[in-house]
Formats: sequence, C-alpha cells, structure tokens
Amino acid sequence: MSLNTFGHLFRVTTWGESHGPALGVTVDGCPPGVPIDEGMIQHWLDRRKPGQNKYTTQRREADEVKILSGVFEGQTTGTPVQLMIENTDQRSKDYSDIMEKFRPGHADITYWQKYGIRDYRGGGRSSARETASRVAAGGLAREAIRALLPGVQITGYMTQMGPHKIDRDRFDWDEIENNPFWVPDAQAATDWADYLDGLRKSGESVGAIIEVVARGVPAGLGAPVYGKLDTDLAAAMMSINAVKGVEIGEGMSSAMLTGTLNADEIFMGPNGPEYSSNHAGGVLGGISTGQDIVVRFAVKPTSSILSTRRTITKSGEETEIITKGRHDPCVGIRAVPVGEAMMACVILDHMLLHRGQVGENRGKIG
Amino acid sequence: MSLNTFGHLFRVTTWGESHGPALGVTVDGCPPGVPIDEGMIQHWLDRRKPGQNKYTTQRREADEVKILSGVFEGQTTGTPVQLMIENTDQRSKDYSDIMEKFRPGHADITYWQKYGIRDYRGGGRSSARETASRVAAGGLAREAIRALLPGVQITGYMTQMGPHKIDRDRFDWDEIENNPFWVPDAQAATDWADYLDGLRKSGESVGAIIEVVARGVPAGLGAPVYGKLDTDLAAAMMSINAVKGVEIGEGMSSAMLTGTLNADEIFMGPNGPEYSSNHAGGVLGGISTGQDIVVRFAVKPTSSILSTRRTITKSGEETEIITKGRHDPCVGIRAVPVGEAMMACVILDHMLLHRGQVGENRGKIG
Amino acid sequence: MSLNTFGHLFRVTTWGESHGPALGVTVDGCPPGVPIDEGMIQHWLDRRKPGQNKYTTQRREADEVKILSGVFEGQTTGTPVQLMIENTDQRSKDYSDIMEKFRPGHADITYWQKYGIRDYRGGGRSSARETASRVAAGGLAREAIRALLPGVQITGYMTQMGPHKIDRDRFDWDEIENNPFWVPDAQAATDWADYLDGLRKSGESVGAIIEVVARGVPAGLGAPVYGKLDTDLAAAMMSINAVKGVEIGEGMSSAMLTGTLNADEIFMGPNGPEYSSNHAGGVLGGISTGQDIVVRFAVKPTSSILSTRRTITKSGEETEIITKGRHDPCVGIRAVPVGEAMMACVILDHMLLHRGQVGENRGKIG
Amino acid sequence: MSLNTFGHLFRVTTWGESHGPALGVTVDGCPPGVPIDEGMIQHWLDRRKPGQNKYTTQRREADEVKILSGVFEGQTTGTPVQLMIENTDQRSKDYSDIMEKFRPGHADITYWQKYGIRDYRGGGRSSARETASRVAAGGLAREAIRALLPGVQITGYMTQMGPHKIDRDRFDWDEIENNPFWVPDAQAATDWADYLDGLRKSGESVGAIIEVVARGVPAGLGAPVYGKLDTDLAAAMMSINAVKGVEIGEGMSSAMLTGTLNADEIFMGPNGPEYSSNHAGGVLGGISTGQDIVVRFAVKPTSSILSTRRTITKSGEETEIITKGRHDPCVGIRAVPVGEAMMACVILDHMLLHRGQVGENRGKIG
Repeated sequence: MSLNTFGHLFRVTTWGESHGPALGVTVDGCPPGVPIDEGMIQHWLDRRKPGQNKYTTQRREADEVKILSGVFEGQTTGTPVQLMIENTDQRSKDYSDIMEKFRPGHADITYWQKYGIRDYRGGGRSSARETASRVAAGGLAREAIRALLPGVQITGYMTQMGPHKIDRDRFDWDEIENNPFWVPDAQAATDWADYLDGLRKSGESVGAIIEVVARGVPAGLGAPVYGKLDTDLAAAMMSINAVKGVEIGEGMSSAMLTGTLNADEIFMGPNGPEYSSNHAGGVLGGISTGQDIVVRFAVKPTSSILSTRRTITKSGEETEIITKGRHDPCVGIRAVPVGEAMMACVILDHMLLHRGQVGENRGKIG
Repeated sequence: MSLNTFGHLFRVTTWGESHGPALGVTVDGCPPGVPIDEGMIQHWLDRRKPGQNKYTTQRREADEVKILSGVFEGQTTGTPVQLMIENTDQRSKDYSDIMEKFRPGHADITYWQKYGIRDYRGGGRSSARETASRVAAGGLAREAIRALLPGVQITGYMTQMGPHKIDRDRFDWDEIENNPFWVPDAQAATDWADYLDGLRKSGESVGAIIEVVARGVPAGLGAPVYGKLDTDLAAAMMSINAVKGVEIGEGMSSAMLTGTLNADEIFMGPNGPEYSSNHAGGVLGGISTGQDIVVRFAVKPTSSILSTRRTITKSGEETEIITKGRHDPCVGIRAVPVGEAMMACVILDHMLLHRGQVGENRGKIG
Repeated sequence: MSLNTFGHLFRVTTWGESHGPALGVTVDGCPPGVPIDEGMIQHWLDRRKPGQNKYTTQRREADEVKILSGVFEGQTTGTPVQLMIENTDQRSKDYSDIMEKFRPGHADITYWQKYGIRDYRGGGRSSARETASRVAAGGLAREAIRALLPGVQITGYMTQMGPHKIDRDRFDWDEIENNPFWVPDAQAATDWADYLDGLRKSGESVGAIIEVVARGVPAGLGAPVYGKLDTDLAAAMMSINAVKGVEIGEGMSSAMLTGTLNADEIFMGPNGPEYSSNHAGGVLGGISTGQDIVVRFAVKPTSSILSTRRTITKSGEETEIITKGRHDPCVGIRAVPVGEAMMACVILDHMLLHRGQVGENRGKIG
Repeated sequence: MSLNTFGHLFRVTTWGESHGPALGVTVDGCPPGVPIDEGMIQHWLDRRKPGQNKYTTQRREADEVKILSGVFEGQTTGTPVQLMIENTDQRSKDYSDIMEKFRPGHADITYWQKYGIRDYRGGGRSSARETASRVAAGGLAREAIRALLPGVQITGYMTQMGPHKIDRDRFDWDEIENNPFWVPDAQAATDWADYLDGLRKSGESVGAIIEVVARGVPAGLGAPVYGKLDTDLAAAMMSINAVKGVEIGEGMSSAMLTGTLNADEIFMGPNGPEYSSNHAGGVLGGISTGQDIVVRFAVKPTSSILSTRRTITKSGEETEIITKGRHDPCVGIRAVPVGEAMMACVILDHMLLHRGQVGENRGKIG
C-alpha cells in the first residue's frame, strides 16, 4: 500500500503539512553512488519557491533542504534518503474563519468528511506546499538519471494560460528561463504578464496548461499493462494538486484523428528507428519508443480568490466566504517545476525497473 | 511490484495473449459473501464481445468466462477469484508479414525493443483482447459494490467520434443502450452510423472520447496524496489500450476558467452538502465529494488500417505494410464497457481502502 | 497489497481450492527469454505429487500443469505466465461432518471466523494442495535462475522426523534422491521408514524439520532493512502450510553462542572472500555473503489423524471428530519440494531486485 | 516495492544511519483521531535507550523524538506521521580501522559488496540504532490499537540468555519490569546478572531468546496465504538486526510432536471458542484464533567483541581486528522493546487490513 508513496523502485514518500514544523520526502530505492549535495537539490527547489515575483504567492519560505540520511561523503549509499524542509513562515494568523467554513474548490470539506479531523491551517496536507517535497525528490532523481544515463533532458513549460495559448511557430527552448511563466514564446510572455496582472489586481485567478518533455530517453522503458510509462505519468501528473487532465502526445485531440494520420510511420536512421511524427508522445503500448516523451496537464485556477463565494460550515449552516491570504493568481506557474520533478521520478523509476524486470537479451533492430 | 496488477486492496491481475490458449484475470481481495455466478460476469463480457455488429471487429469469440476459484455455492469466499476465457477463434493465418515488420501505431516495435521476444500473433499481450479480462473483473467489482453499497450506478457512453460531438441538450440516459455506439443522443447515433460506415468501407479508422460517470458514490473515497481517487482513475483509464488523454470533471478546459467560475459553491441539502455545479467532477483534493464522479478519456484511432504505411523490419530495412485483418473502425466503441469496468474496480477498491485506512470517526456535517 | 502474492519483482500469485475445478499460479515479472516448457515444470511437480508411496496421501492427482500464457515458441516473453493444474480426483464424498464441525489444528474455525463462508471440501484454500502452485512457480524460477546465473543449486532435505535427527557425519548429497524422505543419510532413511510405518498404521502423524540450501549464490543479494534476504526467506517458509518455525544458519541455537564463537572469520580465497565457518547461514545484515544460504523450517504434524479429538460445531455445540481421509502421516516429506520452490522464488526475486535497485558500481574486494 | 518499508496498510518506513544527523520513521496509514503526543512515544523509546545500565552500550543518546507531521491538536489526522530522532552522541573518533577492515559478523562486507559504498561510522544503516525508529513506530501503533480496540496487551521478555533458560514454573508477568533483562523470573534475573557481568568484563558477548505475547487479539486477523499473521510476524522479527530464528507457538519443537499432541482441542466458552492448549501460538491457517499470539526469536551474540578476529581489508589483504567501542554484551536485552514494537505494528496492520479486505458478514459461532 502506498497512499503517500509514488513509484515502483524509486519510492518517493512525501510527508508534512503547510503549517507544521517541517515537511519533506523519504526516498527509498535511489541507486548508490549518485553524487549529491544539498545545493544540487536546492537548485530545483528555488525554482518552485514562493515569493519570487509578483505572480506567485507572497508567502516567504526559504525552502531550505537538509539531507538527513542516505548520503555519505557526497554520494548516495543506497539507503533511504531523507530530505527535510523546515517551515519558517507559518505566519501567525487568525484561522477561525476557515476552521469552521469549507472553502469552495479546496479539499477542506472532503478531508473533513474522510478523516473527521483536519489541519485547517493553510490547507494542511492538501496545500500546494506538499509539492516542495516532490521537487526535492525530483532533484535527486535528476542526478541519479544523470549518473546512470547522461543525455536525458527534462523540461517543462506553460503552453496555455486561461484562453491564451503559445504560438508553436515561435517555440524557443532558450526562452523558457527568460520569463516568470516558463513560456517558450517571448511574445506570449509579454502578453500574459499584462493579462495576469489584471487578474491579480482584481483578486481573480486562472488555470493553465503545462507541457513536460523528456528528451534522450531510450526505447524500452515502461511496463505493460498496468505499469505502462504513460499510465505512471498520468498518475504522477494527476496526483499534483489542482490538476484535472493529463494528455500524452496527441492527447484528447487524438479522438479527431483518422488512423492514417495518427500512426507515426517508421524509418531507419543512423542510430536506430526514427519516426515521421510523434502523435504517440513517445510511448507505444506503454513502452518508450526513443522519441521525446511528451506529457501535458491542465491546472485549474487557484480556488483562493477575493470574490465572495457561498459555502457551508461544519455545523451545516449556509454562509459566505472570501479567501484572503497570500495566493497565486495562476498556480499553474509553480506547477512547471513540479511537473518536471514528477517526470524525472517516473523516468528514473522505469530505468531501474527495466533493469530489474528483464534480462539482457533485449531486441536489437538492424 | 504490480506490473500486470491494478488496485490497492481489490487486486486485479490480467494475464494472457490474443492468440494463446486462454486469457483471464486473477482477482485478489474481493470481499467474501458477494453473490456471483458466471452468468453475472458474462452479462458484462457480452457487451464488449467482438463481432456483434458491423462496427466492431468480425473476429468471433464466445468470450465465455469460467470461474475457477474463489467462489463456493454462489458466493465469493474471500480467496482469489480466477476468471478464465478460452480463446476459440485464433484463426490460423499467415503471420510472416507482421512477424518481421513492425506495424506503425502498434506496440510491435516497443515490445521487441523491451523484451527481445514477442508473440506477434494478433498483437499478443498488447492486443485489445486483454481488455476482456478487465471487463470480467469489472463485472465482479460491480456485484461487490452492489453487495456493499446498493445505489451506486456506473455508466459509460461516447461523447465524441472523430469531429462529431454529442449535443448535451439532447442527453438521454435511456438512449445509451439503444444504439451500437452507446451514445446518449439519438440524433448523434444516426449521424455517426453513416459517418462510421463510410470510414469502415474505406478501411479507415477514427478516434473517440468516452465519458464514464459513477452516481451514488459517497463522500470520503480517495487516499491523498498518491492514491487519490482521480489519480487512480487517471491511471486506470490511461492503462487501457489506445487511450491518450484522461480528464476529471472540467478536464483540460479548466485551464480556461477563472477561479470564480471554477469553484463549485456549496449549499446544505436535506441529505448533506450539495453543490451549485460540478466542475470538480466529484473529486476535491483526491477525495470524493458525493457528487457524480465524471471521467473522460480519448481513444486514438485503431492503428490497423488498410492504407499503406511505411515502416521497418526487425533487421532494420525500410519497407511498407498494410494491416489487413478483422479490426474495429472505431475501437473507442468497445472501450465503453472497458472504461466502466475500470471505474467499477477503482470505486470498489477505494471503498475497501476507506475502511482499511481510517477509523469510524469520520466527519459529520450538520 | 498482495495477500495471495509473494515476491517483489518475481510476483507469484497462487489461486485455487482443494476441490475446485483447478488451481494454479499467476507469475508476473519473469524475465523474457527463459527457455521453458510444461515438461520442465512438470518435473518438479512430480516430486511433490501425492500418492507416490505409502508415506504420502493416497489422493491420486495427475497434477498436470498447463501453460496458458506468457510463453511463446518455448521461451518466456516477459508477460504474465499462467500455470494451471486441473483437479481431477475431487473424490465425491460426504462432507456433512466437516461442514458443521471444525477440525482441531486445521484452519476451519479461523476461515469461518474471518470470512463467514468457507469452502470446507478438503480444506478449500487452506489445503496443502495450494503448495502445488508454489512448486510450479518454483520450477519456472529455477529455469530463470539457470538462464541468468548458471551454477546456483537449490536442494532441500529432511534433517529431523519426530525425535529422530540425521547424523551430520553421514551427510551425503547423493543419498537425498534415493529414499522417500529426501534424507541425506542412508541409515536414517532406513530407520525412519520403520518409525513412520508404525505411525501410519496407528493413524498417527508426526512433525519434521526440513533444511534447504542454496549453493552458488553470489554476494550482494538482499535488500535491507525490510526486504532482507533472510526476512524474505523467513516469510516464504512461514507462509507454507503447517510451518511453525524458521531458522537461518545457526538459528535458535545462536542464543547459546558467544560472540567469539559466532562471528565467522574472513579470509581471502582465490575467488574472493572466504569464511572459517557459516554460523550466519550465508546472510549478513540481510545481504548474501556468497556462502551457502542455509534455511531450516519446522513442519507441525498433520492435523488430520485417526484419534478422536474434541471440538465444537458452527452452532457452538461441543462434540468430537475423527478426521478420516487420505492424509500424510508426515506432511513434512512433501514440504521438501515446496521449501525448495520457495527458496528458488526468493533467490530469483533478489537477483532481479539487485539489478533494479542498485547501480553497477558494486564494491570490489582486492 | 518496500525495501525499507514494513506493513500493508500501516506502512512503516525507517530511515537514517547510526552517525548521521538524525534517524526516524515515516508512518503512513495511521488511522485518524488517535490521541498521541511526543511523550507517549518517548515512553517506549526510553525502554530501548542505550546507556541505562551496565548491561547495555554506554553510548549516551537522549533518543528524543519529535513529531514533524500528521498530528494536529493532539490527534493523528490520517496523513503521514514523521517521527525524527536527532543523533547527539556521534562521538568523534578514529574510524580508519573499520573504514578499511570488515568486522566479522557485521554487515560491513556485504554492504560493501552490494552497494560499493558504505557509511562505516558505527555500522551506518546496519547499526542497531535503526531499531529506535521501529520502537517509535511501535509506540504510535500501540496507541492506535488502544483507540480501536482497548484490551490488547503486548508484552516481550527474555526466556533465554546463552545457555540459561527461564523456569516456566516461576513465570511472573509482574517481574518483567523489575529487572534489567525483562525476565519474568526473579531468580533468573539474579543469576543472569552475574553471568552477564562476567561476560562483559571479559569483552565477550552472548545470544538470547525473546518471547513476545499479544493478549486480547480477536479471532480473524491474518490474510492467507502470503499475508498470514504468522508470516508477517516471522518477517517482522527476522528483519530485526541479529535475529537468526523465529518461532510461532510450539515453533521448531513442533517437529517432535505427534498429531494427537499437537492439535489444540476446541471447547465452547462463555465468550466463544476456547482451546485446551496453545501449541498453535494463536494462529491457525495464518489467521488469529483469539488465543494469545506467541512469537519467539533468537538474537545472535553481539559481533563487536574484544577478542581478536581474523578478517580482510577492502583491498583483499588478510588482517586482524578487535572491535573496541561502546557495545552491548547481550544485544538481546534491547531487542525486547523492539520485538514488542514489531508485534504492535503487525497487529495494528492486520486490524486495518481485516476491515479493508472483508465484509461485515463474518462467521459467528453459536
């Protein structure tokens, strides 16, 4: 059973609440001999960290990671790696409002209905702060991938914010790090800044679509029929707070294609099979083809907004609520590094699994 | 590890190849005392069975299920239930073509690259025939749900075929069983029949979108943060052959909503909380709200088509292939009962898990 | 969850009841490319088969195994292997006695208390017939081990029957196959035959101790701290019907040793480390040392005996019972191939796990 | 996969090394609403704590536990509970000796062979300090059991130290807390003190046998056939450092019994079935009978002793070693609270599992 654990062999268990003393992640199954230190993980955490610009929550968290176990003299030892992030800005405030009322769109009501008790401070376990633990694990996963198979590159970016989509003709990998939205389209970055500014000032929020691409992943990863690479990616992304849809390759649009258009034709390249297109998103029958692995997911708008919404109290009385606080107008922005982290964990997991499951007699072509 | 197993406590392991002697499913964790016989499972298998009309593959399989274990005097005993379906129409044919060539869009090439050996007859393990095992397990899950919690209803239907979508204003639950596409829209059924006929005659295929709804599911099911109800549903649906996208509630479109529009407001009804809308698809924070659970998934067009496609052989030579055979012009049709089966398995699993995980002190409202 | 499943990556799920239509085993995670056919598995099943001599139950079962999936053209494909054994000698008899009464020492009463329903015919799921499935899986595991790492030898034998122990000075590997008890001591074989004959004629039964040794297992297998090689072996053996104790190496007697005596000293041999002794049973810190893996387990006497025992009925009335039928005077005899099978499954599982978990940078000595 | 995780639904993942900054345990699956605070866990940790008398290691560790997550206002919330113990007495010393040499009887050589890197300071992950994490988890498990089912009592004690066994006729539950060995026999406590003093002064060590009894456990716990209650107990105990044998009820001695003697007869008592004896140790067919659950395990002598032992270095040279340091002359003493903790975890896990797996239609008797 693994209700707070993700992965088959690279096992990631996140723990902690938004306003508890700390949160973190227990990673079991990391291969030994991976060079790692706190700075290498901090690098990725800093990308997700709140309060970096006006488009993300103004909560100020250092998000400083400590390695408590599993690393010796700068390398993993094969034993569990414990990564802890202490909470430092649990601003003392009055929680009496959300203690009694359920915020619409949040998990307040369902946690109460399931558990009969909930840590209502900042959303407790259902807070987006939980994703810091994922990013820490993803940082470790990236280093393990690098040690086992240099050349894999995992990159996330936004492709849509509200009604605004990127222009694929302007797609530029180098642009992604140049703007606060991780958008691969310089024009979009400018336009979206104005749009989001308007939303932010009016206390409104909006959804987004994030795409994560893994390049350099070899063919053969993925374990049919319930540990398929795309199945695990779908679960990984859907498990992120506020995600409501996941697509692989052509995604929902594949419903509109004909078989002739959809089937990526195969050619023989200098280093093995090549494909005329990538409608499959790099996965056939749950197994990687060697093409780019392409995953997209939709993040719903932040539920904490300044408009008055109708709701009920624990005692069943109808009332209203305005969710004040330090919130993201587009939580999808900070979902980009989270999606990257989940991709890294899944890819590493399947690299390990592939070794564990099969023999060395893999199919050669040509 | 559970590469061919699905579920936490209701554990479904499918086994078997398209052209082997049999296929089936080992179900471990079914509660004892559930009334069941072969006819009750056969009922659901018959819906998925090929060869029932001109819109599905003409392979003729009785798909007759046998219960080999776990049932005694008409009730489950709490021990593993083995359901076997013997293959009877493994038509003897010449496989030399697909033995050497990889069919584009199929898993031929990736199974070869992963395993170094593949049962190429009819797709082997990656054949859609594997889903018969799922439907059998789903039939058992439905009966277990009925025994534990009468009132849950699980219904799937098509909402889109190629470019054609249903008209939500004409939505009629009773229409679903009246047409070969399980479409809840009589007009669409008529229109789509013509459309699909045309595709079929030209040897073409097309994709589809299926929606599955579970009504009557109580609040509280789902295990944050990696065994969320929607996470498990996403994995369940994405693991079905040919599925490329999964949505919960508003799905990918939630990217376009503002926070004010998206957050379903809460009221107090006579039997507990009620909501103004269901953008959430019945799940908040990974836990069911008591509303309808709404899942959609896209099925890509059947990759076996009569047009010539370019591909390569095992020895790396470029060539062409036409996939003759008995195929579905829209494999999405037969995905409807499969999606229902996966929904049933997930719902039952979380009903059992909810008991196992938590105490009896669940939150009351009002 | 894996209540009827054993193993991490080599996943063995047994199913079936003593008097149902069939029983078998679903093996998920067998590496591809392992040469296998029904005869190779049948070889091991024949060793466990009942009715072979007067010291085992006279039930006549062909125990003929059929491979239903996962094998193509004489090799495993990496997909689930389904092995089925049809029950052929479910002798029609009157079960009214054991239907109402609980047999002391059997699981009748606990299955009833747990499940509220039980297949009372021949013990149902708790029958020793379940171990046929294990032996079938063990046969496959042996072939996979042979394919991956030739040189591993797994051998079980009896070391004690009732009060009679083997003389370690007479230990002879070649003697094991020469007698009906798999005893590595020719003198003991003769003596025990007389002893057991006496017990059998009086309708009595007796316990036994079985030792299983794996030779040729490399250092490095075992996953601390809860997937230790000895932990998994303890679970494997204790899960066999009627087993009440498990020992690794020195076992329970290690309580009597001093530290000086117990710690096996280490030397450098031509092929790596060698040890002065093997009190550890080939496992240190849960990881194999390269020495023989030595496991022992105690099997309690068959509970079905011809003496009258006091018991109660389902309705709570006190009564008496004599368990007539076709039973083993020393069920420990047939536990020998079962213990071997479990050893094979655990060793293979950890071979696969070792690949999956760690990198290639394993520690070299010298 | 769960290489550092124990349990099906009550999931205990221990992490940390002997001389790292901290160690601890991530507990996932604890029911919500269990009253808990640090003091309640500290109570059990204090029993295992080193340095309490001259018979245990003189390392001084406060072993002070901190709850980092999963508890809110004095109750568990159903989310992961993180328990951390900071290491405070990682005495700065010269490790150059054990850095290069493998200590016989320790896991030094096997960790090196498996991982190619090891934290040699104090044994790293294979140190007995890892069991502090288990005791912390066990403390939480005890409180959860108390909340769900008051009346269960779990008690461990020593029954043998070296050649000295307790006299069962002098067995006294109340004596257990009165002596440093947790021996239920006042006379033995006195005798053993002299014996162990002698060993300690000579730098020698000795093994022990611990028995753990759970009283008040209801019938019906345990999940055949691989999640049997006794299977899980065997795994739990064998996973403790230095354990080499596990027995349930009659244990290894059951080999010597006849069927007539072994089968516990059943009677009808005022509250349900009662038994004439408990050779079964409270488990039949893997399911609890309602009798006392009786488990015994043997702990080998501490491998760190003051006698010179022969060994090799990493570079393969033969050499000698004396393991100086702060060690336990009989590590079995501190294994008593560890055994209790493992029993508590297993019992709670099966209480949760029983709910999750089966319906409410359990078998009634009478």
